[in-house]
Amino acid sequence: MLQLVLNYLGIAMFASSGAMVAIRKGFDLFGIAALGILTGVGGGVVRDVFLGIHPPTSIQHWPNITVAVVATAVATLAARHVIRFNRIVLTLDAVGMGFFATSGAAIAADRGASWFAAVLVGLTTAIGGGIIRDVLVREIPLLMRPDDLYAVPALIGATTYAVIDYFGPQWVGLTVGTVLATVLRLAGLVFGWRLPTGPQDLIVGDP
Amino acid sequence: MLQLVLNYLGIAMFASSGAMVAIRKGFDLFGIAALGILTGVGGGVVRDVFLGIHPPTSIQHWPNITVAVVATAVATLAARHVIRFNRIVLTLDAVGMGFFATSGAAIAADRGASWFAAVLVGLTTAIGGGIIRDVLVREIPLLMRPDDLYAVPALIGATTYAVIDYFGPQWVGLTVGTVLATVLRLAGLVFGWRLPTGPQDLIVGDP
Amino acid sequence: MLQLVLNYLGIAMFASSGAMVAIRKGFDLFGIAALGILTGVGGGVVRDVFLGIHPPTSIQHWPNITVAVVATAVATLAARHVIRFNRIVLTLDAVGMGFFATSGAAIAADRGASWFAAVLVGLTTAIGGGIIRDVLVREIPLLMRPDDLYAVPALIGATTYAVIDYFGPQWVGLTVGTVLATVLRLAGLVFGWRLPTGPQDLIVGDP
Repeated sequence: MLQLVLNYLGIAMFASSGAMVAIRKGFDLFGIAALGILTGVGGGVVRDVFLGIHPPTSIQHWPNITVAVVATAVATLAARHVIRFNRIVLTLDAVGMGFFATSGAAIAADRGASWFAAVLVGLTTAIGGGIIRDVLVREIPLLMRPDDLYAVPALIGATTYAVIDYFGPQWVGLTVGTVLATVLRLAGLVFGWRLPTGPQDLIVGDP
Repeated sequence: MLQLVLNYLGIAMFASSGAMVAIRKGFDLFGIAALGILTGVGGGVVRDVFLGIHPPTSIQHWPNITVAVVATAVATLAARHVIRFNRIVLTLDAVGMGFFATSGAAIAADRGASWFAAVLVGLTTAIGGGIIRDVLVREIPLLMRPDDLYAVPALIGATTYAVIDYFGPQWVGLTVGTVLATVLRLAGLVFGWRLPTGPQDLIVGDP
Repeated sequence: MLQLVLNYLGIAMFASSGAMVAIRKGFDLFGIAALGILTGVGGGVVRDVFLGIHPPTSIQHWPNITVAVVATAVATLAARHVIRFNRIVLTLDAVGMGFFATSGAAIAADRGASWFAAVLVGLTTAIGGGIIRDVLVREIPLLMRPDDLYAVPALIGATTYAVIDYFGPQWVGLTVGTVLATVLRLAGLVFGWRLPTGPQDLIVGDP
């Protein structure tokens, strides 16, 4: 039950982020909905393509995309307020990211993927939607730029899940992985953690 | 038989649009052919990846890509005329789009996908090639910008197919869905139908 | 054994090219590693998605990505030297490309794909990583621009493999295909071979 709630929460947050970017780029209503849906369920669709789940869950069953559409509609109607409550949105997004990283790893492990694959698939589930969003609006994926930590908490959450699941019950792994990824993401935002770049003098133009 | 013709017509039109974009971007002959092929069969390849058809039909069997290559060659040789006969190209493209939307839905339904999935896969088949084309040439997908209606007719065509197929014979759904999507697309072009965008004042820079 | 070496060599070269692009774009360490990995194993992952290998080999088994990570780390630490030894890097990259084109075709043929599909999958394996790299950093794929020959040698190598494998032993096809693609690529670099573009006067802006 909680898992279902976290799944929909994650999709809704990702979809809202896609919708907000689409609004700012001047997309029409179809474009806003499409970018919201692709950002919301894109990571899960890539996960299912990697795992051979045909058709991908979000395409075969209606609830995920319906949640994404509703979140997109709400974000569009309340666009000004969404921008103002940016802090709440970032927090909920961190929870969704943490859950996607660990649940993605769990789904992979349940389908017989290696632990190595489970971690990577979890990471992909958490960050895939955001990368699709950025590529479609012609931006370099936020994840790759030295702005703030997003993928590293997802990677740590998925790894934590895999380690705990190897030794103990799955639900402990899911809980600890999700909480850890979320907390690391929020701590990174609060304290402004960043990773270093390569040699500064080799950077060409603006990133 | 008619289905085969419509399939090749759709691929040829999509491939030509990819080739024309590539020519205008100054791509070399390989780049023109590659963008033509990817635009022509890209939507169908994504459809097959979603449905678990391995390898995708257009990769496994030679006719589709051959049609795309021929269309690309013709478009390249006749580039100036293609631009002049833009109205004919847009009309044939609308027919291809309509057929891809409904035939994509039909292929999904035949492989046991849910009706919900059939509609989404039909839509993906119709618009996937164009999105791949625009991402590769570093443009924001045309579909998402408020220029004219393309995806909405495809969505309506695929939905119409699914509804009719549920109650009656498949060929009626294919015919009505294809015709309806094509007519809506052309009507949208003639009458300049557009969808609204989000709040104007939130739009940043040019779309 | 040699095949394993060539596989890791190819991944390492592709990963280094991704890392160098990421460094120049000012990505942080995660972004550099991510782009290196995606460039290094991306072609193979797309190949596996097309062939229905779930999860893709590079995701399921750790060696490929580990090689990509190590190559990325070395390239980052030695970034200035990598730029200076550009000629060596281009040569090794040509070997990797040639091997990926033919080995990708061989893997496809072994899984029952048609000869037509084997050639296309080989080509995809060789050029997929580079296209993913360029799309993610918001560049028009190098392959499509009239800079130098890359995809055409890969296509010829994969085709050569398929023809030889049809008549004779697989290892001859692998060897001749790899060598031929590599030599053609290097000859193209040395002699500045280029393909023509479409009509010059239709080119809009800079490519």
